[in-house]
Amino acid sequence: MADNKKLVAEITSMDDDFTQWYTDVCIKADLIAYSHIKGFMVIKPYGYAIWENIMKLLDERFKKTGVQNVSMPLLIPESLLAKEGELVNGFAPEVAWVTAGGTEPLTERLAIRPTSETVFSDFYKDDVHSYRDLPRLYNQWCSVVRWEKETRPFLRSREFLWQEGHTIHATKEEAEERTQMMLRVYADFLAEDMAIPTIKGQKTEKEKFAGAESTYTVEALMHDGRALQSGTSHFFGQKFSKAYDITYTDKDNTLKYVWQTSWGLTTRTIGAMIMVHGDNSGLVIPPHIAPVQCAIIPIQQRKEGVLEKANEIKDVLSGFRVKVDDTDKSPGYKFAEQEMRGIPLRIEIGPRDISVGKCVLVRRDTGEKIEAPLDGIEQKVGEVLDAMQQEMLVRAEEHMNSLTSVAEDYDEFRAHFDKGNGFVKAMWCGDRECEDKIKEDLGVTSRCIPFDQEEISGKCVCCGRPAKKMVIWARAY
Amino acid sequence: MADNKKLVAEITSMDDDFTQWYTDVCIKADLIAYSHIKGFMVIKPYGYAIWENIMKLLDERFKKTGVQNVSMPLLIPESLLAKEGELVNGFAPEVAWVTAGGTEPLTERLAIRPTSETVFSDFYKDDVHSYRDLPRLYNQWCSVVRWEKETRPFLRSREFLWQEGHTIHATKEEAEERTQMMLRVYADFLAEDMAIPTIKGQKTEKEKFAGAESTYTVEALMHDGRALQSGTSHFFGQKFSKAYDITYTDKDNTLKYVWQTSWGLTTRTIGAMIMVHGDNSGLVIPPHIAPVQCAIIPIQQRKEGVLEKANEIKDVLSGFRVKVDDTDKSPGYKFAEQEMRGIPLRIEIGPRDISVGKCVLVRRDTGEKIEAPLDGIEQKVGEVLDAMQQEMLVRAEEHMNSLTSVAEDYDEFRAHFDKGNGFVKAMWCGDRECEDKIKEDLGVTSRCIPFDQEEISGKCVCCGRPAKKMVIWARAY
Repeated sequence: MADNKKLVAEITSMDDDFTQWYTDVCIKADLIAYSHIKGFMVIKPYGYAIWENIMKLLDERFKKTGVQNVSMPLLIPESLLAKEGELVNGFAPEVAWVTAGGTEPLTERLAIRPTSETVFSDFYKDDVHSYRDLPRLYNQWCSVVRWEKETRPFLRSREFLWQEGHTIHATKEEAEERTQMMLRVYADFLAEDMAIPTIKGQKTEKEKFAGAESTYTVEALMHDGRALQSGTSHFFGQKFSKAYDITYTDKDNTLKYVWQTSWGLTTRTIGAMIMVHGDNSGLVIPPHIAPVQCAIIPIQQRKEGVLEKANEIKDVLSGFRVKVDDTDKSPGYKFAEQEMRGIPLRIEIGPRDISVGKCVLVRRDTGEKIEAPLDGIEQKVGEVLDAMQQEMLVRAEEHMNSLTSVAEDYDEFRAHFDKGNGFVKAMWCGDRECEDKIKEDLGVTSRCIPFDQEEISGKCVCCGRPAKKMVIWARAY
Repeated sequence: MADNKKLVAEITSMDDDFTQWYTDVCIKADLIAYSHIKGFMVIKPYGYAIWENIMKLLDERFKKTGVQNVSMPLLIPESLLAKEGELVNGFAPEVAWVTAGGTEPLTERLAIRPTSETVFSDFYKDDVHSYRDLPRLYNQWCSVVRWEKETRPFLRSREFLWQEGHTIHATKEEAEERTQMMLRVYADFLAEDMAIPTIKGQKTEKEKFAGAESTYTVEALMHDGRALQSGTSHFFGQKFSKAYDITYTDKDNTLKYVWQTSWGLTTRTIGAMIMVHGDNSGLVIPPHIAPVQCAIIPIQQRKEGVLEKANEIKDVLSGFRVKVDDTDKSPGYKFAEQEMRGIPLRIEIGPRDISVGKCVLVRRDTGEKIEAPLDGIEQKVGEVLDAMQQEMLVRAEEHMNSLTSVAEDYDEFRAHFDKGNGFVKAMWCGDRECEDKIKEDLGVTSRCIPFDQEEISGKCVCCGRPAKKMVIWARAY
C-alpha cells in the first residue's frame, strides 16, 4: 500500500486548506488542465464525461417539459446588446469584444455572448406573430465568455459551459409558472442526480440578474460551509419584449408584448459536486453522473482465470458503466486511483474470491466492504449503487442542516460568522443598506429569500427595524 | 388540396433555380433563420434536432474507436496561433480578433478559434510525457468562426457547428492508420445514416488543409451535379509536434516527437442532406436522422374514435419517433407540411380505415402508398423505414453514377462541363498549373485523388504530359 499512500499524499488535506484541496482534486482526478490563456481551462476527458452525463440527464428533464434546443450566434453587435440598458450595464465590464474580422476592422464591435437574452429577443421579434406561436420554449447548450478578474476551475472562469433557456409566453402567469417550473427542475436534478440538496428562493434586488424583474435561485452548501449558487431562473416581465419589440396578435386581435423568462445551469455544478461530496482521498461522484460506476480491480491478475473472471463480471454488468483495470499497476495503486477519481463502486476479485464464488464490493462514499456472491451480482450492484445515490443526498442534507443556524440579532449573527461558515437564517427589513453593511462587515451576502419562510423574529437582524422576510445568509463562492 | 398546393408553391422549383430552391427549403422546412449579424444563422429546433441526431450517431461511432470528448478554450493568443506558419497563413485572412476584455484593451490579440490544432498541441505538450501516455484520441463538439465573404445557410457561414478530433501517436504508421480510419468512419456514417454516398480520396497539394502533410476527403455529389466536401481527415506528420514541442520518452528512453492527425465534420452535412435527397415538395430526411420518423395524420379527426386510434397507434410505435398532428389544419395542409419537413413516413388513419382495421402508410421518398393492417403495424413501419433508408442510398448512388463521366482529353473534359455538372474522372500530371488553368477556364476544381484509381489514359487531361494519377474533378460548393 506504499504507493497508495503516495498518490493520496499528493492532495492537500481538506481540513488543512480547503482551497488547495479543491484545486488538487481538480488536477489529480484528471478533470481539468490549465490552458495557455488566463482564466480559460481545458476540460479533460474525465471531467467532460461528467458534463456529458449532466447534459444528458438535465436535457431529458427539459424535454419532458416541452423545451426544444436551438443554436444561436456566438457574437452580438454592440447596438443590439445595448438595447436593454440594465443588462448591458450589468455585463459591459466583463464582455470580450471582437473588433476585426480577418484583415479588416469591423464597423461595429461585436461582443462574445456573456448570455443570450438579447440574441433570443432579436430572433423572437421576427419569429412570433400570433398567439398560436406561443409559448416558445427554447434552450441552447454552449459556452459563454465573461472577463472575470479572479478565476478558479469550474467555479469562476472566463469561459464556461452552460445551458441557457429562453422562453416567451402570452401571459404573465404562464411566464411566472415557467420560471418556477425550471427552478424546480434544477432542484430536482441536483437532488436526485447529483445528490446535492439546495434551498429554493428568490434573490434580493441587489443580487438579482441584471435586467430581470425577479431572479430565483437554488443555493447549495459546500463542505466548508460556503454557499454556491447552483442554478438560476429569471422572470423578465415585459422588459425585453418592450426593448426589442416582441409582439403578437392575441385572440382578441390586439397587439400585445410577450412575457419572458430565462434560466441557466453551468459547469459550476461540477465544482459543487466536488465540494459537497469529496473527501481526503479525492472525488466522490454520485452514481447517476459517474462516467465509470464500477471499477473492477483484479487481485493477483497474472494467476490463471482472474482476468477472465474480471471480464466475465464486466459482461454481466453490461447495464452499468464498468471498467476493468488490468494495467500493470499494483492493486493498492489502483485502489487509490479509483478513490481519487471518485468511482462509486470498486469490485475486488482474486483467486480466493473466485474459489468461493464471491467478490468484494467497496463503496467509495462510506468505504463499506460487502462480500457478494457472483451469482446475482448484477442485482446486488444495482442495489448498492441505488443506496449510495440516496445516502449521499441524505448525508449532504444532514451536513447542510448541521451548518444551518438562526440569528435573532446582529451579535448572534456576527458570532456565527466569526466562528465559521454555514447558512444563517435571519430577518431582513428589505433595504439594500443592510445588505451592504453585512457584506462590508463580514463578507457575507444574502443568498436568497427562501420559499419556505420562518418567523425568526420581527426585526431586521442588521438595523432592528420591523422585518417580514427571512433571508438565508452565507459567505459564497 | 388547395392549401396543399399553396404551401408547396411557396418553394421555387429545383429545376428552375436550384439555389433559390435550397434557400426556400431551409426556411420553409423551419431549419434556420437568418440572424441580426451577417453570416451567422440561427439553427431552429427542427434543424437542431437533425444535428442532435447526427451528433449522437457519429459520437457513438467515434467512441467505438476509443475517442474521448474534451472541451478546449474558445480563444487563442495570436503568438500561439502563429507558431505553425502554414496554418496561420492559411487562416489569418478569416480570423475574428478579440482586442478588449471588459473595459481594458488586451496586451495581445486573441483569435476566436477557426480550428484548434494549435490549442490541442499546446495542451498535449504538457499532458504527454511517456509512450505510456500515447495515443491520445481527443475530440470536441463546438462552434468555430471563419470570416467568410460569401455565406449560405449550412454550406458556408461565419460561425458553424462541428466536431474536431485531434490525435497524437507514437508512430507514423499509427497516425496514418488513424487518419484513414476516421475517413472510413465518415464515409460509413454518411452512407449508412445519412444515405449519402461519397468518394474517398486524397486532396492535392493545392486543395489540402493548411499545415497538413496530407488531407483525405469524402466527396459527395449534390442533386445539381455540384460536389460537396463532406468530411476531411488530416495527417500532420510531426509538423505541429516540432513547432509546439510535443515530445515523449519512448521505451528506449529517447525523446521523440509525436505524430498527429485531425479530422472534422460540420453542419454542412445538413446542407448535403438537403441537396442530395430533397425534391420539389421540400426536404426528404433519411429515417436514421429524422427528428420525427412518422407523422400520424388523422382523417375526419372530429369523428368519434379517430383521434383515440391515432394516439393508440402512436403508443404502439413507441420504438420510433412519432408525432400525431391533431391541429385544426386540413389533412391536405398537414400532408404538405409533413412533406415539406421531410418526415419519412406518413400514416393516414380515418373512420373507414378504422372500420376495416387498416391504415395507409405513405413513403416520403417515393410517394408509395401502402395499405397496412393495424395488427402488426410496428413491424411493418420498421420494415418500411429500413427499406427507405436503404433505397435512399441506392438512389443517391445511382444519381452519382449517372452524373459521373470520364474524359481522356481537354476537349472532352471541357465538353462535359460546358454541358453541365457532375464528377469527371480524368488523369492529372501532378502540377498545380494544370489545376489553376482548369479552375480559371471552367470553375472546376480537383475534388480528390480517389483511393480507387482507374487508368483512363496515360496523359494529363490538361497539358498532355505523362500522368499516373486519376483525379475526380467537379464544380463545388
